[in-house]
Amino acid sequence: MKNYLTVKNIDHLSDWVKTAMEMKKDPLRFRDLGRNKTLALLFFNSSLRTRMSTHKAALNLGMDVMVMNIGKDGWILDFEDGSIMDRNSAEHIKEAAQVVAQYSDIIAVRAFASLQDKQSDEAELVLNGFKKYAGVPIINMESSIHHPLQALADAITIEEFRKTKKTKVVLSWAPHPRPLPHAVANSFVEVMQMSEVDFVLTHPPGYELNPQITGNCTIEYDQQKALENADFVYVKNWSSYKDYGKVLHQDRDWMMTENKLGSANFMHCLPVRRNVVVEDAVLDSDKSLVHAQANNRTYAAQLVLKKILESN
Amino acid sequence: MKNYLTVKNIDHLSDWVKTAMEMKKDPLRFRDLGRNKTLALLFFNSSLRTRMSTHKAALNLGMDVMVMNIGKDGWILDFEDGSIMDRNSAEHIKEAAQVVAQYSDIIAVRAFASLQDKQSDEAELVLNGFKKYAGVPIINMESSIHHPLQALADAITIEEFRKTKKTKVVLSWAPHPRPLPHAVANSFVEVMQMSEVDFVLTHPPGYELNPQITGNCTIEYDQQKALENADFVYVKNWSSYKDYGKVLHQDRDWMMTENKLGSANFMHCLPVRRNVVVEDAVLDSDKSLVHAQANNRTYAAQLVLKKILESN
Amino acid sequence: MKNYLTVKNIDHLSDWVKTAMEMKKDPLRFRDLGRNKTLALLFFNSSLRTRMSTHKAALNLGMDVMVMNIGKDGWILDFEDGSIMDRNSAEHIKEAAQVVAQYSDIIAVRAFASLQDKQSDEAELVLNGFKKYAGVPIINMESSIHHPLQALADAITIEEFRKTKKTKVVLSWAPHPRPLPHAVANSFVEVMQMSEVDFVLTHPPGYELNPQITGNCTIEYDQQKALENADFVYVKNWSSYKDYGKVLHQDRDWMMTENKLGSANFMHCLPVRRNVVVEDAVLDSDKSLVHAQANNRTYAAQLVLKKILESN
Repeated sequence: MKNYLTVKNIDHLSDWVKTAMEMKKDPLRFRDLGRNKTLALLFFNSSLRTRMSTHKAALNLGMDVMVMNIGKDGWILDFEDGSIMDRNSAEHIKEAAQVVAQYSDIIAVRAFASLQDKQSDEAELVLNGFKKYAGVPIINMESSIHHPLQALADAITIEEFRKTKKTKVVLSWAPHPRPLPHAVANSFVEVMQMSEVDFVLTHPPGYELNPQITGNCTIEYDQQKALENADFVYVKNWSSYKDYGKVLHQDRDWMMTENKLGSANFMHCLPVRRNVVVEDAVLDSDKSLVHAQANNRTYAAQLVLKKILESN
Repeated sequence: MKNYLTVKNIDHLSDWVKTAMEMKKDPLRFRDLGRNKTLALLFFNSSLRTRMSTHKAALNLGMDVMVMNIGKDGWILDFEDGSIMDRNSAEHIKEAAQVVAQYSDIIAVRAFASLQDKQSDEAELVLNGFKKYAGVPIINMESSIHHPLQALADAITIEEFRKTKKTKVVLSWAPHPRPLPHAVANSFVEVMQMSEVDFVLTHPPGYELNPQITGNCTIEYDQQKALENADFVYVKNWSSYKDYGKVLHQDRDWMMTENKLGSANFMHCLPVRRNVVVEDAVLDSDKSLVHAQANNRTYAAQLVLKKILESN
Repeated sequence: MKNYLTVKNIDHLSDWVKTAMEMKKDPLRFRDLGRNKTLALLFFNSSLRTRMSTHKAALNLGMDVMVMNIGKDGWILDFEDGSIMDRNSAEHIKEAAQVVAQYSDIIAVRAFASLQDKQSDEAELVLNGFKKYAGVPIINMESSIHHPLQALADAITIEEFRKTKKTKVVLSWAPHPRPLPHAVANSFVEVMQMSEVDFVLTHPPGYELNPQITGNCTIEYDQQKALENADFVYVKNWSSYKDYGKVLHQDRDWMMTENKLGSANFMHCLPVRRNVVVEDAVLDSDKSLVHAQANNRTYAAQLVLKKILESN
């Protein structure tokens, strides 16, 4: 494997999940694999889980890690071809990517959607810039459209907690005071489409995700109906895709409650706004898998790093 | 030992000081103790000494270190139970603490007093949040009320430089243009109460520390009288505790001078404002132990880490 | 070698270049040299290449690295002797330097010119403060006047790509919208003066560098004439030295073009503003050595670290 940019880069999901679960039992087994290899973690946006779990995953494989808050500690980047750089940006992605690649064996990048300009977000300027120019393997730590390390951790978590072969998973939109990107939802939808699960997507009208992502997913606008007999309920807010980046409304009725959840497991990628997205009673119950998900972020990242290290 | 939150977590101070002094002679002796263990350093506030000395201490023990400026690089945290998080904070301490614990064997936290709200500061929301929810050992790198790594380094320094069994130590308030927290003074008072020294606290009226901390300490409002026959003079500013967080005055007469110090050793936790808190002549003389104190920060942190690693 | 502050600290340039090129073939050969040694990287300004390449160099030598954005994560420093510190600065360079030295075997410092005050910039307050007070070896990661790690990397790059014993190198000023420091140009001029090359400096009148640096360099105000028969063309902007820190004009005619460059190799320290300093056609051609230069930053830093480690 060269890059890990979307869950589409996973060749056999069930094999990956199985390997990750095995690695979790003995995380230091491959401590020599990354010896004298350097991972650069580049952040254009805030990060807690992704930063620490990817760092930890690299340490488990014996890698050296260099962390850059590239937006704050480096230079403002330009992404346009042929740009006359006489304004704010001091460095072009062409140089930045090739330079970082001089010092790194693998580059992991986080660059959120702006939610201001759909076309520009969908061009994935930062991630694709590094992919195009760096020449070393690139890992997506959340781009405008995808968050494949999260989705892989989520698939691992579902496998760990599923009790029956036939499992129903619901992705349920939740209210939120601020416009949020679609990346987590997109990658979760995609990974569920690759899984042997009964998957249902539920959200208010107007919050449809990119139809190219959802494809022939079951979409059920009635949340109560969608949640019937669910085994796993993944709750997440996202802003409108059609009316790009807008908060159409914050309908409190869509908040996840203990009552709605019933006997299903609760999932969320975190950070989560308590009593807005989900009530305390859910998060503080043993139905909540959020810490298991956060924990599996390490093994998702470690698996991706291992696969890249082994094929280079 | 589980946590190191205040100097009250030290069971036998003289043993700790002795062990730290021994470790200082051969700092790499326990380089295998922390192998494959990860220390997370979480900063809600600025840090130079604490950051570097704790990092260095962990390296001496062979640990991996992950540093987060959590206020800047992560998310704004919420600390209230039952909070409806529809404002600025994006993550609750309950999740943040449990998440960081997924990637760390020990978590060290710095979160200063706000000096705006005594009750909230005394609740030690950040430190206690991590203690309550993380489930892994917590080290206090300065909280609202305590700075126990500094106090332990100070106790080591006094032991190194004391010439007689009977030693007189004075903690002397100094003027400062800005309101400063009480943590350093509090922890120094507490560690001196645990030490075999003759301890005197001196400050202008109105600058009394929390009486629950000072207990039956000797308080002498006349600085000159307090300094008589002192062997060690620890100088430090703090704001009013009673009129919480206020700078009542900046009486320049309380600045430490060569003349006042006499033959005593000078101590300060740093950073220090020259010619405001203490005159150049003192800091630049061989009576100043400030670099020895800074140096001992490494061994104080290393001892605490070692004790935690050994008991887990 | 104690410190690496300017290229004047290089005793035999050709030996250094040769050693660096050998080390580049087997970068991990001295992985044990830095074992249990700590390098502190202190940044008062932004950095990408310098930060990552120096970090990587230290890792190649087996060193531990502690990175501080000292301006942001630490305290505001004071540099004046006898200063009464009752304003913004919370710590004096005397303490800061000696404190960092307690936790580090080598300290590397970046502190750019302000371009506001020539006298203050030329005093190199930060770098000289660390040199004077730290007591451990200091490496200059770009100061007001010098950027010796860049210049050493440039010398290595020229050696790698020169085809003939007799080589002509031109340093050509370029337009830029913002006032830039003289450090890169100064150190390149100095290192060329130490090299067996035919060196020509070209810039518009008014952009003369400090005559104490340029000495008896050939200065040719006619860019076209200067570029005749050049083998290497180093392009770089700097602000006026005489009218200190001013952008006198941004004459676009001085931008480097494919046409002007001819068969010469193109060099730039990066970051570079495309189509302002140099046109795309040059940067995107195989005449451009900018990535080779960036790559050699690692080996320049590694050589300097190695020499310091070996002599301490």
